[in-house]
Amino acid sequence: MSNRINSLFDIQYPIIQAGMVWCSGWKLASAVSNAGGLGIIGAGSMYPDVLWQHLQKMKTATDKPFAVNIPLMYPDTEILMDIIVKEGVKIVFTSAGNPAIWTPFLKGMDITVVHVISNTRFAKKAEDAGADAIVAEGFEAGGHNGKEETTTLCLVPMIADAVKIPVIAAGGISSGRSMLAAIALGAEGVQVGSAFAVAEESSAHPAFKERIIKANEGDTRMHLQKIVPVRLLRNTFEAAVAAAEAEGADPATLKSLLGRARAKLGMFDGNMEEGELEIGQVSAMLKEIRPAKVILDEIWQGFLSEQQTLSKFDIK
Amino acid sequence: MSNRINSLFDIQYPIIQAGMVWCSGWKLASAVSNAGGLGIIGAGSMYPDVLWQHLQKMKTATDKPFAVNIPLMYPDTEILMDIIVKEGVKIVFTSAGNPAIWTPFLKGMDITVVHVISNTRFAKKAEDAGADAIVAEGFEAGGHNGKEETTTLCLVPMIADAVKIPVIAAGGISSGRSMLAAIALGAEGVQVGSAFAVAEESSAHPAFKERIIKANEGDTRMHLQKIVPVRLLRNTFEAAVAAAEAEGADPATLKSLLGRARAKLGMFDGNMEEGELEIGQVSAMLKEIRPAKVILDEIWQGFLSEQQTLSKFDIK
Repeated sequence: MSNRINSLFDIQYPIIQAGMVWCSGWKLASAVSNAGGLGIIGAGSMYPDVLWQHLQKMKTATDKPFAVNIPLMYPDTEILMDIIVKEGVKIVFTSAGNPAIWTPFLKGMDITVVHVISNTRFAKKAEDAGADAIVAEGFEAGGHNGKEETTTLCLVPMIADAVKIPVIAAGGISSGRSMLAAIALGAEGVQVGSAFAVAEESSAHPAFKERIIKANEGDTRMHLQKIVPVRLLRNTFEAAVAAAEAEGADPATLKSLLGRARAKLGMFDGNMEEGELEIGQVSAMLKEIRPAKVILDEIWQGFLSEQQTLSKFDIK
Repeated sequence: MSNRINSLFDIQYPIIQAGMVWCSGWKLASAVSNAGGLGIIGAGSMYPDVLWQHLQKMKTATDKPFAVNIPLMYPDTEILMDIIVKEGVKIVFTSAGNPAIWTPFLKGMDITVVHVISNTRFAKKAEDAGADAIVAEGFEAGGHNGKEETTTLCLVPMIADAVKIPVIAAGGISSGRSMLAAIALGAEGVQVGSAFAVAEESSAHPAFKERIIKANEGDTRMHLQKIVPVRLLRNTFEAAVAAAEAEGADPATLKSLLGRARAKLGMFDGNMEEGELEIGQVSAMLKEIRPAKVILDEIWQGFLSEQQTLSKFDIK
């Protein structure tokens, strides 16, 4: 049985490493691509010149397909797109914005375009704009999230029914079991974030990785719905946000509390108390810092093994 | 392959109809039990004499196994338990409370006990107390919910790893695909709520059923986290709660806004604007009011068919 995601990206396993601010530079992305998945450089935390440097290193580190993720909510999008075209990037994942704006431009440059969505309306919009695939990302995912709060289990079947292009499930996927569940729901591939954020090759600060593998159930929470919803790991900053929200803080107050560059402060600089720590609910299941290839292999082997088990589930 | 859930309850299909306030009386529960699943009478919305009456009708309507769900947060628990024992009920699902309180009593009466949880700590507590199975219910479920907000996709594998007794997945399950995903995650059965709330035999008010099948993505939202978290369908009451919460309303204000008997007002009496409408995120996928047997058969046949498809998913 041919797999549309593998064909689309020309990769071996339908496992995509999510573009993540401060975690997924060339080191992580090339490790994943070299291991047979699709590595993504997360440009959301990169100035244009930094992205350019990562692309040079990436091309040296792998000859396998890779992608760049561009969240459309940040400034510099135009400059980043220009670099992508000039550097010959072949696959772009766009997120956090309107797919109608950049998809036609990228398609015109013969670039494969995937758009990240959290509802049916934007999935259809992305398909109409010419996107080649959709990432359907559920409420349990780390970082920025959809206003509808639809979970991966509920979202993926709706999106798979709504569009003809292939669907990649994201949010809550870190193991063979959860990958199998995602494929059962109608996805043809999975995007894995948190599990790769703690990879050895992730550029996340070591203290952040340690904090993630110590996280327990309920240690992440959705916040800042009055600005842009984001899933955060508990710390002093998260507690301040929670307290402000419980008291009815308005968007301006929350923006001022958030300030600037908090994600870098926490995830890259390692300030575990005052930084913004973006990670998914699956952090409660992550227990080790390992090479990306080991993580990818474990997911794929787990998938194959659980697929066998599941095929035997019966009521006799 | 033998299925522990089917053996435990002596049922044909590992599909359990959730005990739901104002929806699951003897009519719905007997229809599900007669169709080969496990029907549950939801005692959460019943005075003791009402439960007694439902049990009499239930015994006339089916000779198949059935259960009663007792949320431990309501008054009258002791009287309800007394009726259950005297009427010879063989399976009890407890929820919304400490499993250590009633499990030993029920086990002492030779009753099969299942406890509903939303985190690992309570799953282990239920197992330690002697429960025979666990319902692991995720964030996407309707009605009362866990404080951790862990989704079904993230919760089920953690619970399956944490306990030896069988796990029933709940929250977000309404189709063969989502049932297959739940089994892939390590569950051995599924509990289906919303999809049966719109069954012909459900005692939900017809206006509520109509509202559910018209619900769209994002039309349910978790609220009242400062009292007891509950997933509600959008209406005038929900908007009032959302507005109060956005302004930082304290628990006392929210309790006063909630008032008394709002769930009955909406779900049973059919006041679509001022009532409390409890339903899950899958309401966005429900499109028809049909007999419970048709709903159950569709889930099971869908499961078998998707299981075949999934077993062929490959990268070759």
